[in-house]
Amino acid sequence: MKKLKRSARLVDMTQYLLSRPHHLIPLTTFAQRYGAAKSSISEDLAIIKEVFEDQGMGELLTLAGAAGGVKYIPKVSREGALIFINQLCEKLSQPDRILPGGYLYMSDLLGQPGLMNEAGKLFATAFADAKIDCIMTVETKGIPLAYATGAELNLPVVLVRRDHQVTEGSAVSINYVSGSQKSLHTMSLSRRALKERSRVLIVDDFMKAGGTIQGMVDLLAEFDATVAGVGVLVESGEVESEQRLLHDYVSLATLRAVDAKGKEISVEPGNYFSRK
Amino acid sequence: MKKLKRSARLVDMTQYLLSRPHHLIPLTTFAQRYGAAKSSISEDLAIIKEVFEDQGMGELLTLAGAAGGVKYIPKVSREGALIFINQLCEKLSQPDRILPGGYLYMSDLLGQPGLMNEAGKLFATAFADAKIDCIMTVETKGIPLAYATGAELNLPVVLVRRDHQVTEGSAVSINYVSGSQKSLHTMSLSRRALKERSRVLIVDDFMKAGGTIQGMVDLLAEFDATVAGVGVLVESGEVESEQRLLHDYVSLATLRAVDAKGKEISVEPGNYFSRK
Repeated sequence: MKKLKRSARLVDMTQYLLSRPHHLIPLTTFAQRYGAAKSSISEDLAIIKEVFEDQGMGELLTLAGAAGGVKYIPKVSREGALIFINQLCEKLSQPDRILPGGYLYMSDLLGQPGLMNEAGKLFATAFADAKIDCIMTVETKGIPLAYATGAELNLPVVLVRRDHQVTEGSAVSINYVSGSQKSLHTMSLSRRALKERSRVLIVDDFMKAGGTIQGMVDLLAEFDATVAGVGVLVESGEVESEQRLLHDYVSLATLRAVDAKGKEISVEPGNYFSRK
Repeated sequence: MKKLKRSARLVDMTQYLLSRPHHLIPLTTFAQRYGAAKSSISEDLAIIKEVFEDQGMGELLTLAGAAGGVKYIPKVSREGALIFINQLCEKLSQPDRILPGGYLYMSDLLGQPGLMNEAGKLFATAFADAKIDCIMTVETKGIPLAYATGAELNLPVVLVRRDHQVTEGSAVSINYVSGSQKSLHTMSLSRRALKERSRVLIVDDFMKAGGTIQGMVDLLAEFDATVAGVGVLVESGEVESEQRLLHDYVSLATLRAVDAKGKEISVEPGNYFSRK
């Protein structure tokens, strides 16, 4: 790379860091990339760090020593999270989302990559300090959230299937009871997909009693893997606490009530803030 | 926002632009954000533009006039695309991917958010100038690719389901023949998901004869919508040209042959470069 002025170097370092969240980048990488002294690189990083922190974009960690370097940890500020969650609640409350049976249409929101990426940043913030090896979700609607979270945390995504697929090789299948409908379902995971003793963050779009997520927890046990956390976009608040199979999770929004007759949906922020 | 020095302003403008691909940002947005003159903002943008172009990250378009502003168009350089596609082919050729029946295990690759996002950038490059209203895919494995492409192009994703789901409201279902197995399947799309006369980019992970994608094309016709393009990660080269249902598409890799006995997989670059 040709030798850059400080101004151009700052632009390039910013894009380099932003596109590599949770990667440790040795200072020598930058020093070589720009043919600059490490002291100049450190000055540049101090400028970038200040902007990232002022903008509530997260932290720029500097690790000293031979194995050291710099690591960008994307985090959403409390203020940014509040704005996002309030907007999400407002969108979820639009009365034309009510479907027959009191179900809520959310596919338009789940279909917005920018919104999913922002939600993924919130999960990455909530679980930034957890020891996690991978993200898990079950098909279908939680997939974009799981990938958004995985991208921010620099972690792979493991996808649980409803049926055993020929393209997955040998798989472990379990039966689980979906809490809301008390009906029996199957989910399966390829043997190759998950290393034993992995620590797994489960992500999904919606949780009622938590039967589907409990199914994933049971599946993890078959792999000697453990749950490092659970994140859901929307939880249903229409479930009694004793009916809930799962109590330790992070939710961004809580669906309080759907009044199909009165065409009213009541949504409030989830436990994202109260957990902290 | 407090008044920033040029160095800090460059860092912030870079992150602002990178997080809003294909958004038109009026210069006044920046001028107000930094309390700076438009002439200073223009100088900053010239620096950023040069770095983005030198790094093969895409274009920074400046549109003059009252409705003008600046727009970041992410594009992968030819050199960057070549490196990515060669690495992809190498990974796909690993002999331990061969499954019983000659199928290829790809879930580990599809489970890497970074790799999916990079592939999405290639599709965003190939279709940067096409008039597109949304991205479409059918569950399950093409979903991360579709979202990655949608994020880069600032477009929503429409998800076709294999079954009609109660959370989708009324839906249009069609039957289609999967070309490789000559078996009959169903796919369905929520009526709300797609506006009539939309121009749609179809994205999927794998294409053999093209039956599944042809199913999506048929489904589009039910919505008076049209195909603006088709992008697949891997195409099977084991299909005779006259068997192929679809001829106009962009592929990143071509699976030439799977020799289950000899444990060899032959993969070569798709038509991504030859189309240009």
